[in-house]
Amino acid sequence: MKLENSKGTKDFGPEEKIVREEVISSLKSVFELYGFSPLETPVLTRYELFESKYSIGSEMLKETFSLKDQGDRKLGLRFDLTVPLAKYVGLNPELKMPFKRYEIGRTFRDGPVKTGRMREFWQCDVDIVGASSMLADAEILAVVNSAFNQLGLSIVIKLSNRKFLEGVLDFSGVNKDKRFDAIISIDKLEKLGENEVIKEMGQKGIPDDVVTKIMSIINMKGSNKELIERLKGLIKSGIGVEGLKEVEEIISYCNSFGVESLEFSPSLARGLAYYTGPVYEVFLKDSDIKISAAAGGRYDKMIGAFLGVGKEYPATGIAFGLEVITEALKKKKKFEKKSVTQAFIIPIKTGQESIKITEELRKAGIKTEMDLMSRGISKNLAYANSLNIPFTVIIGEQELKENKVKLRDMKTGKEELLSVKDVVQKLKQ
Amino acid sequence: MKLENSKGTKDFGPEEKIVREEVISSLKSVFELYGFSPLETPVLTRYELFESKYSIGSEMLKETFSLKDQGDRKLGLRFDLTVPLAKYVGLNPELKMPFKRYEIGRTFRDGPVKTGRMREFWQCDVDIVGASSMLADAEILAVVNSAFNQLGLSIVIKLSNRKFLEGVLDFSGVNKDKRFDAIISIDKLEKLGENEVIKEMGQKGIPDDVVTKIMSIINMKGSNKELIERLKGLIKSGIGVEGLKEVEEIISYCNSFGVESLEFSPSLARGLAYYTGPVYEVFLKDSDIKISAAAGGRYDKMIGAFLGVGKEYPATGIAFGLEVITEALKKKKKFEKKSVTQAFIIPIKTGQESIKITEELRKAGIKTEMDLMSRGISKNLAYANSLNIPFTVIIGEQELKENKVKLRDMKTGKEELLSVKDVVQKLKQ
Repeated sequence: MKLENSKGTKDFGPEEKIVREEVISSLKSVFELYGFSPLETPVLTRYELFESKYSIGSEMLKETFSLKDQGDRKLGLRFDLTVPLAKYVGLNPELKMPFKRYEIGRTFRDGPVKTGRMREFWQCDVDIVGASSMLADAEILAVVNSAFNQLGLSIVIKLSNRKFLEGVLDFSGVNKDKRFDAIISIDKLEKLGENEVIKEMGQKGIPDDVVTKIMSIINMKGSNKELIERLKGLIKSGIGVEGLKEVEEIISYCNSFGVESLEFSPSLARGLAYYTGPVYEVFLKDSDIKISAAAGGRYDKMIGAFLGVGKEYPATGIAFGLEVITEALKKKKKFEKKSVTQAFIIPIKTGQESIKITEELRKAGIKTEMDLMSRGISKNLAYANSLNIPFTVIIGEQELKENKVKLRDMKTGKEELLSVKDVVQKLKQ
Repeated sequence: MKLENSKGTKDFGPEEKIVREEVISSLKSVFELYGFSPLETPVLTRYELFESKYSIGSEMLKETFSLKDQGDRKLGLRFDLTVPLAKYVGLNPELKMPFKRYEIGRTFRDGPVKTGRMREFWQCDVDIVGASSMLADAEILAVVNSAFNQLGLSIVIKLSNRKFLEGVLDFSGVNKDKRFDAIISIDKLEKLGENEVIKEMGQKGIPDDVVTKIMSIINMKGSNKELIERLKGLIKSGIGVEGLKEVEEIISYCNSFGVESLEFSPSLARGLAYYTGPVYEVFLKDSDIKISAAAGGRYDKMIGAFLGVGKEYPATGIAFGLEVITEALKKKKKFEKKSVTQAFIIPIKTGQESIKITEELRKAGIKTEMDLMSRGISKNLAYANSLNIPFTVIIGEQELKENKVKLRDMKTGKEELLSVKDVVQKLKQ
């Protein structure tokens, strides 16, 4: 047997996991500040759910891991946290609306593996179900703004709208049945570049002049206000008008929320089938990480489709990517914590007594590790040092007679003879 | 499409998830107090790893979910968190020993579904790798003791030893190649009862008189001291002697750690192939939940086998079952938190101003939700009430003119006209 991880997965050792836990705990605190409550949905999902209309779409279905259980039922590993939320809402008709939840957990995609794209990764989602107002979308962006502020990362939030995009495609002369194909292509603009996207749309049977028209619109640059004005002059009827109005409303609400760096970006499309209105994607400023750090949008049709009812069921939300955020933080700061331990106990022929003192420190709230290998002082000091444990406590028979222990500051090398009570007080500072 | 969860999985809505999060955070704090650092391993695992010698064993392999990725590689969903830990240690030869880690995460078993046994569930594991001393096993049990103390649950820790059991089987005359079969049967004693276990051992080809001998030993009752003395009188040579010595040592160390309710239980076997020494299982006292709340043991051969080296690689640890613990807590206390929110903002024609005040409360650390549905006061009060949100803040034009808002205590119905600053102060208490 060759010992290795399965493709597209990795282990996160303590040094990395401590950072990940810090990010998760920071995100959770912001999500809860904004009144979102936690939800947990399973990873194992009936495969049908992914195949449903207004679910992830056939393109993404190819990347869904599938398996069978002992009862020969076809299952899939969840692809995101949005579909499971829609399922939960569908299964719980008694939920009070709006339902504001967050979920932080693993998702799985059997796609190409490259930097920042793993087959198993974490999403951290906030969603609002039941509110159709753009106020809800703006609140999602306010969460984004606060979360990245708290993490100390500068961002740009790019905003567009599927209704607006449909208006653009309509205006450019794309047939109804080709519109989602075109959106899938536009979504690849950042990744593949303009030429490839134009080529792909051509291959999909969209005439050259139509493609040219689309590109000229989605490539428009300018301030939010300028863009909206110019586009309003162009798109004067149909669903595109509604989309533009939604963009305007979100920008206005975001102003009140104090959201910074919000950019209307007409070419932002998002590749998932389920979006129906606003879409957003968050990029890090001053970073060489080009993958988005968070992305989402409104999906008013998924829940209704799952329920088999014709009507829309408003919902909007965003997923933060834990891997991208952690990478960015690791590049910004130096993380050196290889252990959570605050004190390491080194007994010198004082085994049972040292156990009791170790327990005393733990009861006082000090994160304490104790020698389990019966090693000598120097080996124990080297171990504590290699894990960056800040203090060691050396417990010898002589010290015990005086009801003292020796506290060593591992950074300075300074040693003090102290009572256990004083050690606690010192380490609590 | 029928909307339903896949078999053996369920959603945990906010009310339940809040309790689960409390349990996880309580366990984490105890794990860290004992100097364990966090680790994260993937769910997707190369299937080979489960098939390896000293891995989970053929019985458990039947319950492992398997699937293939696009590259036609056979994968499995992790069955526990122990095998992934052994893999991690094997892949990271530079790790300093002892390596003390905890991991909290989902595990998957495609087995029969019944109360307390789901196909997707959480384990919370603490393990010590690299220390062969029984001091390490005792420290694991000290973690157990502290964790359940902190959770407010009374427990009994049952302790036995695979070397001791092998000694019993040897003494009773079971052939070497049938010993793990016998252990698998003994493990079912609690579940199936004595008659069934005797029958099963017979079916496995173990002679009746041998089975009788085994049962007479493992059914012995008495205090830890009495049992050890009686068994020492019986098992006087071979590996069983070593096992009994280990039991004695753990009990002595546990005494120094202040571990309560530790019971030597000769019939405790544990069904996994990888155990090599002490095994432990934790049961709740005064509870109708009969499934163990935590279980583990020593597995000195798994890591060496993964590495393809002949030598042993000491490791010991325990897994806490999140579902059982949460169920027990739910039965003991009443949980009524349906939301994390502390304050709910009700604007009356003060939309943009109310957004700003909402943000002010959030910046001050108050978990705040705001009306997103433009509903009237009474509907908003009913919503806040249904989620048990303790306070609402009503913001009308009149109040704003005086730089005030109306704070309503949802329990008492009492209303006060306060400045935003005073609202913050009041809610911070």
